[in-house]
Amino acid sequence: MESAMPVFRRKVNYYETDRMEVVHNSNYMRYMEEARMYWMDALGMNCRELEERGIVIPCVSAEQKFRDYLRYDDIFTVKLVLEEFTGVRMKFSYEFYNEASGVNCFSGTSEHYFAKQGDYKPMSLKRKHPKLFKQLADLVKA
Amino acid sequence: MESAMPVFRRKVNYYETDRMEVVHNSNYMRYMEEARMYWMDALGMNCRELEERGIVIPCVSAEQKFRDYLRYDDIFTVKLVLEEFTGVRMKFSYEFYNEASGVNCFSGTSEHYFAKQGDYKPMSLKRKHPKLFKQLADLVKA
Amino acid sequence: MESAMPVFRRKVNYYETDRMEVVHNSNYMRYMEEARMYWMDALGMNCRELEERGIVIPCVSAEQKFRDYLRYDDIFTVKLVLEEFTGVRMKFSYEFYNEASGVNCFSGTSEHYFAKQGDYKPMSLKRKHPKLFKQLADLVKA
Amino acid sequence: MESAMPVFRRKVNYYETDRMEVVHNSNYMRYMEEARMYWMDALGMNCRELEERGIVIPCVSAEQKFRDYLRYDDIFTVKLVLEEFTGVRMKFSYEFYNEASGVNCFSGTSEHYFAKQGDYKPMSLKRKHPKLFKQLADLVKA
Repeated sequence: MESAMPVFRRKVNYYETDRMEVVHNSNYMRYMEEARMYWMDALGMNCRELEERGIVIPCVSAEQKFRDYLRYDDIFTVKLVLEEFTGVRMKFSYEFYNEASGVNCFSGTSEHYFAKQGDYKPMSLKRKHPKLFKQLADLVKA
Repeated sequence: MESAMPVFRRKVNYYETDRMEVVHNSNYMRYMEEARMYWMDALGMNCRELEERGIVIPCVSAEQKFRDYLRYDDIFTVKLVLEEFTGVRMKFSYEFYNEASGVNCFSGTSEHYFAKQGDYKPMSLKRKHPKLFKQLADLVKA
Repeated sequence: MESAMPVFRRKVNYYETDRMEVVHNSNYMRYMEEARMYWMDALGMNCRELEERGIVIPCVSAEQKFRDYLRYDDIFTVKLVLEEFTGVRMKFSYEFYNEASGVNCFSGTSEHYFAKQGDYKPMSLKRKHPKLFKQLADLVKA
Repeated sequence: MESAMPVFRRKVNYYETDRMEVVHNSNYMRYMEEARMYWMDALGMNCRELEERGIVIPCVSAEQKFRDYLRYDDIFTVKLVLEEFTGVRMKFSYEFYNEASGVNCFSGTSEHYFAKQGDYKPMSLKRKHPKLFKQLADLVKA
């Protein structure tokens, strides 16, 4: 899905750097989460509301390529694409760009599944949440 | 309480430093939590078990004095004292020492209350959990 | 200083919550840092530029009162006041408000000193950086 | 390398959980770092000493498979293997086990390169640090 969505844009916080003076690698999973939830929000799929309906979306796997460093006060943008959606699982890709230099500083993917809150058992959206299913299915096709 | 307890001892992780090359200040609340839960564990008050009995222990207030820097790979020890216990609230003090230099690098306090899981309403231990009440009352008196 | 400054406004991230389902207490030092650097940026005192001029601003002490919980997806605003400025040290106060409810959910202070990068020795701004000195002195008087 | 090394063993901290009541996924990069530096320490390759000799070891890429949840107070162990070493790059694999259940709860890899502190340019250990080169080459062959 090549979206006409508002772009996720973020400044690096001081506390996200480490003694190498660059963003610590553990923060990229957090940035990916922020970008993904921003994207879902913009589409009307707020994760807090989903949890109130008993749906959680745990992460199953992730891949990360650290291409260039981000430093304190750098601004970066994230291009997010919903790559796959099976009805139970979805997979996203993320490309991070340093806004000032234009450099593609990070590439990542993350795979998630829809689960029942409480026991984290996989949940098929098609039967339980047909509207949400259709919305995601349409997005991945686009 | 001047305890004859095992001392909490910890090495600074790389990811806990920031671009000033020292431990980021936000980590001290985490170190205080680790030291406090270590102390409670040693006394048979494991927080996971308390939560299974419906008790949570939120933080109400904290004070922090950053006296000297801790750096990656430094080892520090924490001297913890239960300063006050009212039956609903308890207050701890913490003194951190750089093990190699002996320097008192940090002093802190934190105040907590016993609460009912779910609504976080204050809970008087005396009535609901008399054994736990007695144990803490004895410790603060000592 | 009661400023006519743009207000720092922030949404709580999922990864900032803990198993009590509220923001973990260690994040408030991070939020205070974000609000403080936002305020300094708005006044033309960007911390990255200050570091390029050899100035770092470590935290000396902090106080925190946790008045009410913040949860994932909550939006909060921070009212920051520069309370004191001695030429070497400055002290800020912070009031956090839950935007939806208006509740004053957190109060904090933090004290910092101006230091030479490298050895972290205190630095008097008056002699070394008179413009920055005047700017902060004017702000605290206002 | 199937090592007879001391096993890295760790308890999950409260602050590492999120509102799903399990360890937040961003912490696994931190746990991998802890296990890796523990392993390097045990082999006499302390990262602080390496940095004092001008060597940093940034992460180039990582993969993560979240197989089962870790919760507050769980103890896990990490089986680390140095899979590849080229003289400039090294790749590790990590298997995490829940100590109580024996479940393989996480699998990961991370790839790093040796770099010059300051400009992060790749550094060939063979010429610059032949002892370190030999030590790692022997380990990966074993």
